[in-house]
Amino acid sequence: MQLIDGNAIAESIIEELTAEVGALEGKKPTVAFIRVGDDPASVSYVRKKERTAERIGIESRLHLFPENVSKEELFAQIDALNGDPDVNGILIQAPLPKHIDETETFNRVAPGKDVDGFNTVNIGKLCQEDGSGFVACTPAGIVELIDRSGIETEGKHVVVLGRSQIVGKPAALLMMRKAVPGNATVTVCHSRTKNLPEVTRQADILIAAIGRPNFVTGDMVKDGVAVIDVGINRVEDASKKRGYRLVGDVEFEAVSPKASQITPVPGGVGPMTVAMLMHNTLRAFKAAQ
Amino acid sequence: MQLIDGNAIAESIIEELTAEVGALEGKKPTVAFIRVGDDPASVSYVRKKERTAERIGIESRLHLFPENVSKEELFAQIDALNGDPDVNGILIQAPLPKHIDETETFNRVAPGKDVDGFNTVNIGKLCQEDGSGFVACTPAGIVELIDRSGIETEGKHVVVLGRSQIVGKPAALLMMRKAVPGNATVTVCHSRTKNLPEVTRQADILIAAIGRPNFVTGDMVKDGVAVIDVGINRVEDASKKRGYRLVGDVEFEAVSPKASQITPVPGGVGPMTVAMLMHNTLRAFKAAQ
Repeated sequence: MQLIDGNAIAESIIEELTAEVGALEGKKPTVAFIRVGDDPASVSYVRKKERTAERIGIESRLHLFPENVSKEELFAQIDALNGDPDVNGILIQAPLPKHIDETETFNRVAPGKDVDGFNTVNIGKLCQEDGSGFVACTPAGIVELIDRSGIETEGKHVVVLGRSQIVGKPAALLMMRKAVPGNATVTVCHSRTKNLPEVTRQADILIAAIGRPNFVTGDMVKDGVAVIDVGINRVEDASKKRGYRLVGDVEFEAVSPKASQITPVPGGVGPMTVAMLMHNTLRAFKAAQ
Repeated sequence: MQLIDGNAIAESIIEELTAEVGALEGKKPTVAFIRVGDDPASVSYVRKKERTAERIGIESRLHLFPENVSKEELFAQIDALNGDPDVNGILIQAPLPKHIDETETFNRVAPGKDVDGFNTVNIGKLCQEDGSGFVACTPAGIVELIDRSGIETEGKHVVVLGRSQIVGKPAALLMMRKAVPGNATVTVCHSRTKNLPEVTRQADILIAAIGRPNFVTGDMVKDGVAVIDVGINRVEDASKKRGYRLVGDVEFEAVSPKASQITPVPGGVGPMTVAMLMHNTLRAFKAAQ
């Protein structure tokens, strides 16, 4: 069994991006972050994105709004950023307060600056295999992990566990497209699937994105499977200072001995999302030149 | 084995639409057809759509352009129709001449008038399970056939053979969505799939859209499968006056004895597409009121 080191792979991508941005003459890429409220997880995610941008040489701007911001005010900010030629990418940190519709907000971002890949146009382009769109950072990170770990997908059976709009479905579409990585036979299963272990046991590559701690047990996979565990779940753990530990959707101890390759949690898909955000920002910058 | 009579089901839909349009007071729905060149198949398809519209009470307008029309001229017509409040739906008959990009042309149609469902925004909405979009007529017709034939999809294994943007992928997305019909475990397989018969034999419902005559043979399905055959292929047949006959992607004689339900070709999915186009046009009309 070989561990897929998401931290190391993300680090390689960041180094590649740093070299590429360093070689740019004149203007630097710029990404704008919008954060609403002070949710500690959001604060921490945005800070991490700012730091990574800084390392690479991507400029970032942070726009903060209070929890009770009006939709009009928020949208006015998005519109201003859409119209600002110095801004290449716009990221709106989720979750948003309940009085603001997330889909509507994500769609307010100009498709060409939607480095998060949540705009309906970019999701449509993914489905149409139109490479000019932006792929959302988590599924894009999954594909990079697979590619950089030398996992072949062509003709392989990829089983995606979970059918969410932000992970399961885009990951499935990426794996079935006419490209490398891609060209896989893809099965999407979920909470309504009957005989789930029978389905998951067919997987040459299993992408687990169902959001349930330790859901995939040893009997649910076949020998030699490659496992991408997208889940990041908190489970109570009194032995930890913060009272919990993070586990994936896959029971690592039971599944890893059967796997050819597997991502740990944390340190698997997680670090890839920020790297892919920066990758998308540089692409948006280049497209704007 | 029960035959799924696409002609009869399409007829029911057309009757329902006729009743609904008949009950409208004041304005009637209007669909505009754009046809470029004189390809006999295109002439015949558009005529069929005009006749069905007329039966239902939907007004239609036909805009004809010569094969050598410029992109600018064609797009000016689309723009005029987009801006015309009396036009609810716009259909551009494919194929277009080679000098005009089809994706770009389909995307020129305003998403709210894109009754063909080929606009990137409508494909994205399908992926996002946003019901405000238009679903392309062939996959929408497949879902209607399944629904009106009493075929349950929840928790069932749907195998989609073919990964095209206009049939395979949207049909897969529709079958996996959180809805009825839907909630199915979905496998998409295609020309690169290894051990294809092993995959298709798992299907409770098989949607064949690979475009190869008689590709699915009797040994590729299990007893009790429900089969939706999307293929319409010409094979030479000297015994026919026109020199060919139409066959599906499924070898009907071998597969039908094992099937619980199966669509014939012709007379299965084919008649549904025109009915769904009219359904979409009426929806576009209602949304515009």
